[in-house]
Amino acid sequence: MSRKFVLAAAQMGPIAADEPRNSAVTRMIEMMREAKSRGARLVVFPELALTTFFPRWYREEPEWRDRWFETEMPSPETRPLFEMAAELGLGFHLGYAELTPEGRHFNTAILVDETGRIAGKYRKIHLPGHSEHEPWRPFQHLEKRYFEKGDLGFPVFDAFDGRIGMCICNDRRWPETWRMLGLGGAELVVLGYNTPLHYPPAPEHDHLQYFHNELSVQAGAYQNGLWAAAVAKAGREEDCDLIGGSVIVAPTGEIVAKAATVEDEVVTALVDLDRCTEIRANVFNFSLHRQPKDYAAIAK
Amino acid sequence: MSRKFVLAAAQMGPIAADEPRNSAVTRMIEMMREAKSRGARLVVFPELALTTFFPRWYREEPEWRDRWFETEMPSPETRPLFEMAAELGLGFHLGYAELTPEGRHFNTAILVDETGRIAGKYRKIHLPGHSEHEPWRPFQHLEKRYFEKGDLGFPVFDAFDGRIGMCICNDRRWPETWRMLGLGGAELVVLGYNTPLHYPPAPEHDHLQYFHNELSVQAGAYQNGLWAAAVAKAGREEDCDLIGGSVIVAPTGEIVAKAATVEDEVVTALVDLDRCTEIRANVFNFSLHRQPKDYAAIAK
Repeated sequence: MSRKFVLAAAQMGPIAADEPRNSAVTRMIEMMREAKSRGARLVVFPELALTTFFPRWYREEPEWRDRWFETEMPSPETRPLFEMAAELGLGFHLGYAELTPEGRHFNTAILVDETGRIAGKYRKIHLPGHSEHEPWRPFQHLEKRYFEKGDLGFPVFDAFDGRIGMCICNDRRWPETWRMLGLGGAELVVLGYNTPLHYPPAPEHDHLQYFHNELSVQAGAYQNGLWAAAVAKAGREEDCDLIGGSVIVAPTGEIVAKAATVEDEVVTALVDLDRCTEIRANVFNFSLHRQPKDYAAIAK
Repeated sequence: MSRKFVLAAAQMGPIAADEPRNSAVTRMIEMMREAKSRGARLVVFPELALTTFFPRWYREEPEWRDRWFETEMPSPETRPLFEMAAELGLGFHLGYAELTPEGRHFNTAILVDETGRIAGKYRKIHLPGHSEHEPWRPFQHLEKRYFEKGDLGFPVFDAFDGRIGMCICNDRRWPETWRMLGLGGAELVVLGYNTPLHYPPAPEHDHLQYFHNELSVQAGAYQNGLWAAAVAKAGREEDCDLIGGSVIVAPTGEIVAKAATVEDEVVTALVDLDRCTEIRANVFNFSLHRQPKDYAAIAK
């Protein structure tokens, strides 16, 4: 049985602070139609894809924070995505801010299959940034304030005739993320990101943001022999420039599709999950070559 | 106190099977003189730098194997390297096959300081290839036959006013290697390699050998905020083409020097060990951002 399908990365341009969720959903549905017309079976949306990237602001009021969070999924505002998935037979990956019935806040992503059913959920583990207000910054990065660390580990799900893993934004920089997913058998990792072009603590590296995104995703794909799709929310969002550069990467580490704007943009590639074995049966044959007894410090 | 110094990568062209060790040593001494004339404080030689890459052949006789190994370091043949180091005030890194007094065989590298003293030793942990003769291959890769796995872990040494780690060839592809060295505080990782251009089990990737070398070293440097020097034995060695592409890489992952031949060639870069903090105090601040409790499977 062939395990080839067309994968779409649906980069999104900026979302204004006052843009309602149904506007973002309308943009996503338009990209779902485009992805389907280009043969896609799965479309990947960014991190926190329903709203502006609110951790750039410091506000103390709990009700200010909670307005950015979803208390149910699907909700009345997001249900059209699920209905469109079922209608088109097109799965999707979506990042959003999750507020649980117990009052816990997570930076979350879900995988939805071609019938519109949630097939998997992940909660971001590597929260970047800081937890206290730092007024010297031109904008904040308060993920450590507004979110709890994810509590689901690095799960991998049976879907799309393969094994699919997820991570979110800063997770992609950490080789541990990719290795945990690779050890779990992931053949495709999908992820979204919101990465400012300007990094206030080390602005001398601003020109390297696109390079670091690609380096992290390409290394993670190659070193675990898996496909990866990394998808940006991009462009000038409320006076903050976010990088684009959404990519689909093969198990060889090669970039096979790449966005060329900082706007809403769909790029696609034909993904063959069976190609993972070219890497995993050879240079990265874990059972032959890994030496876990020599890695103790990594998990300590 | 400034911790800047010039680092030299001394790529070597092929070594013929019948080329005596003193010939290889003479070539290395010539490159030490060149490195010194270009201001270097440390010069990095390749893996198994004293002989041809003998694991490409299958031979059963123990005496055939042992002729490629060093039983002492320095030996009469290698002592000139140590004397030249002391004379020039120039440290070096050297890979060689080590046969211990107990009869154990390792793929080893040493770090020698500016006084000609051995400051550190590493024994290769990720042995690639296979242990049995596979006649279908145009050449063998019998490291798993001729060497034991290293038994020294991933040590890091105080030298050159910094913390220096080592790994060898296939080790560089494994993110665990870099992370172990990064957790150990390494500010510079030096390594040598012998990488055939042709990979018999997956020849469809042969055109990616240079890319995979760079991807692995750049990711390892960036994700741990350290300098790296990866140095090839290169060129057509006994009917086997070895890649060149020796590089020096900054803690940002940027390549700052690169060989442009497959011959004996010295490239240099000014290394500032204090630049590691640009990465380690920020995006890869381990104590703030790593989540070891979520990495258990990596060390299992």
